[in-house]
Amino acid sequence: MDDDTRRFRQWSREVQDLIRVVWLLDWDQAVLMPPAGVRQRSEQLKTLAGVLHRRITDPGDGEVLERVAARADGDPDLAADVRVMRHRRDRALKVPADLEAERARVCGLAQREWERAREAGDFEAFRPYLEDVVRLVREVGLALDPEHPYDALLDDHEPGMTEAALRPLFSEVEDRTRGLLARVQGSGAVVNRAVFERDYPVADQEAFARRLAADLGFDFEAGRLDRSAHPFTAGSFRDVRMTIRHDPGNLATALFATLHETGHALYEQGIDPDRERDPSGQSCSMGIHESQSRLWENLVGRSRAFWAFCLPRLKEAFPGRLDDVDTDAIARAANVVRPSLIRVEADELTYNLHILLRFDLEVALIGGRLAVADLPDAWNEGMRRMLGLDVPDDRMGVLQDVHWSAGMFGYFPSYTLGNLYAAQFFGRLREEVPDVDARIARGEFGCIREWLSVRIYREGRRHLPAELCERVTGRPLSVDPLFDHLERRLSEVYRF
Amino acid sequence: MDDDTRRFRQWSREVQDLIRVVWLLDWDQAVLMPPAGVRQRSEQLKTLAGVLHRRITDPGDGEVLERVAARADGDPDLAADVRVMRHRRDRALKVPADLEAERARVCGLAQREWERAREAGDFEAFRPYLEDVVRLVREVGLALDPEHPYDALLDDHEPGMTEAALRPLFSEVEDRTRGLLARVQGSGAVVNRAVFERDYPVADQEAFARRLAADLGFDFEAGRLDRSAHPFTAGSFRDVRMTIRHDPGNLATALFATLHETGHALYEQGIDPDRERDPSGQSCSMGIHESQSRLWENLVGRSRAFWAFCLPRLKEAFPGRLDDVDTDAIARAANVVRPSLIRVEADELTYNLHILLRFDLEVALIGGRLAVADLPDAWNEGMRRMLGLDVPDDRMGVLQDVHWSAGMFGYFPSYTLGNLYAAQFFGRLREEVPDVDARIARGEFGCIREWLSVRIYREGRRHLPAELCERVTGRPLSVDPLFDHLERRLSEVYRF
Repeated sequence: MDDDTRRFRQWSREVQDLIRVVWLLDWDQAVLMPPAGVRQRSEQLKTLAGVLHRRITDPGDGEVLERVAARADGDPDLAADVRVMRHRRDRALKVPADLEAERARVCGLAQREWERAREAGDFEAFRPYLEDVVRLVREVGLALDPEHPYDALLDDHEPGMTEAALRPLFSEVEDRTRGLLARVQGSGAVVNRAVFERDYPVADQEAFARRLAADLGFDFEAGRLDRSAHPFTAGSFRDVRMTIRHDPGNLATALFATLHETGHALYEQGIDPDRERDPSGQSCSMGIHESQSRLWENLVGRSRAFWAFCLPRLKEAFPGRLDDVDTDAIARAANVVRPSLIRVEADELTYNLHILLRFDLEVALIGGRLAVADLPDAWNEGMRRMLGLDVPDDRMGVLQDVHWSAGMFGYFPSYTLGNLYAAQFFGRLREEVPDVDARIARGEFGCIREWLSVRIYREGRRHLPAELCERVTGRPLSVDPLFDHLERRLSEVYRF
Repeated sequence: MDDDTRRFRQWSREVQDLIRVVWLLDWDQAVLMPPAGVRQRSEQLKTLAGVLHRRITDPGDGEVLERVAARADGDPDLAADVRVMRHRRDRALKVPADLEAERARVCGLAQREWERAREAGDFEAFRPYLEDVVRLVREVGLALDPEHPYDALLDDHEPGMTEAALRPLFSEVEDRTRGLLARVQGSGAVVNRAVFERDYPVADQEAFARRLAADLGFDFEAGRLDRSAHPFTAGSFRDVRMTIRHDPGNLATALFATLHETGHALYEQGIDPDRERDPSGQSCSMGIHESQSRLWENLVGRSRAFWAFCLPRLKEAFPGRLDDVDTDAIARAANVVRPSLIRVEADELTYNLHILLRFDLEVALIGGRLAVADLPDAWNEGMRRMLGLDVPDDRMGVLQDVHWSAGMFGYFPSYTLGNLYAAQFFGRLREEVPDVDARIARGEFGCIREWLSVRIYREGRRHLPAELCERVTGRPLSVDPLFDHLERRLSEVYRF
């Protein structure tokens, strides 16, 4: 390896290390940091953001990057690393270091204020913090792209994606969701979730979640499972940390959270060991990341085959609680469609309507067409329009998600993109592994992991997400596979 | 504030932030990181060490430092900050960045290997890692001071201290320890620890430890108490994290660890809020830090007054376990003197012999006069000479402490210095708070905290430790207060 390449490798890997350190600080803050530590932590986040900015924009490393770029063509991995680092560098050069650092500090503070405000259902207490966040994030967006600040933010989560490309996709998702929802509601079938809403002791739920994650393939030597107010997964490679939450009166909360987060975690644990610190070895995009979580949560986790596997284990873990339940009953309960207030507990069909609402609102916030003070009203109005529901309080409404408090504008579309990718990936997997259902029913999840590993995990960030989708499935991203899947599944459950 | 001072403040505070981030990574690794994460964590530590080195040696910030130094005389706090930062900078300029970074990486790896080797009692498995650590730490020491590499390492923990200054002090400690030990052993009194060695369920021990820490003044809103293989305290100000360990058959393990770590933690939680990110606002030295831990563990925690307070609470926490025990009996049990193998469980008198042995060995290792391969024999020989004990295996011997694996050479003297400072401080406190025993017996620990707060916690790093000692007690550090205290206490316990 020549000196330039060596220096480029060191530079890009050290940037990756620093990103991982920031993840750890975020995880620690969400999971176990003492509450009074928030102010000093936010200073640490600010300092690290400044360090990262300086490191990425270092003029000497920038010159090395260009020299390496000029002759990286023969080495596709190196070329991919160059592409990712150049993108990061170009982006960083447009945003003043102080702005980036201040954003990190304010978002660190705002998350704790969001937690408190959510607990109290008190949007007004949170408003000034969210105003700061929106102001700073908007400034970042404008610095990156004065014409399309939202696109610039979106690109941080889904490289290459734009609002203009999302609009027709999301419009089709909305139309087809409404069509299918009407058929479900018109079916007259009675399906409910009562089987999940029995008394399930939290300690037993926790033990079951750990066992389930291990069954799906999560390596506890290289990861953790903890509790937090808002389930999430952080870290990568040999240190991947999931969090879930438990509701003693609703087993579904922890169960689907475990499936969802394990999907994220398997992706991170599955990255190519030879490129684990390289920029192009990392996960492709947040849309692809959410495709992994939603694939395990929905395509696998709500299938009849999964419940054939899972129910006997549940009966063992909760003796006497499920004696009257058979596979069909619990599989149907896992697929109840009912417009509801909380995104993370929404059914597979109406889930996307939650995302579409958030997308509209955040585009308006970043576009300067919606003031933070008017956000709760806009939210409540949107919930009536999209889901036909009245929001009783902000805790069940605009305060339910952590993302905006953390400055993650442009993230929400990843969920619906993830749903679309997941269905398209799983359709392809089903063609190549025709007996996948039988295998799921036997708990043989290895075939899914291996399929994903070769095609997605180890591909890392070599390609843009849209390209990856085409490479894996042979077709550009489409709304069809998701709705074909939903129609098939819901017509079984609701018998229409 | 002028521009230079503002820039100096930002520079020095960001350095402090980065040091705190490294602490968090260390804490996380010791307490809860997944085992397989060690390699990537060690890369992160290496990267952060490089970042810190670059930040401290930044030429522009160095010029600002000198300009601020030239006119800081009117502002004692600023002058103190300048002194600390100039010391850090001078030190960093002498050590190549790559060496500092590689040391951080190797020490990160070695700690996990030490944990494994200790578990297995297998020094040979750990030897190559320790060899790397010693080689790199020695290189650092030689880069800092080619004549006296050990002094340079010592200075990192106890600014201003030298091996030459320690020798006579430690020699006197050894002589007086031997003299007092002979009197204890010749007293014929029978005292034992049986009262601590009953069956104390770990969960109840844990609850008691939390209550005790809170009684002593630990603020759980600004800190945590967890378990780890080796008790320690990390973090500062509003995020202070203690760890302890539990032995179901020995209550003393957790109890004295709680007293010890709470001493550290109160110091960190007590730093001046107005200077919490400033270099001179931080703790003075590791010797002063250990004075705080040993003060609560020994001067307070082994006093009869403390047991008058603690015993009723223990009886409440462990119903039926201590019905036959009175204050005199448990206070005597807390002061049993008996040469033993494990430092952290040693009695107050023979404890320093453990330190003196480690001091001799590490001076020889860094001086190149002792090879790592010969360390176990030298250890075992030393234990016979110092304490008259045969070491049954390396787990109970050379593998018992984490310090060397973490590259902390020059740290061990802090414990004996801490014991000396603690006795001298407490002697002074007793003069100024004559009814301190009565207050301890009533659980009124606030008077001790307030005394320490004004004189030590909030003084931070304004003075070198030797100066601080003189300011607080009116005298230079002396061996007398410790042995006066020990003689008083042990003559009561052993009735000589």
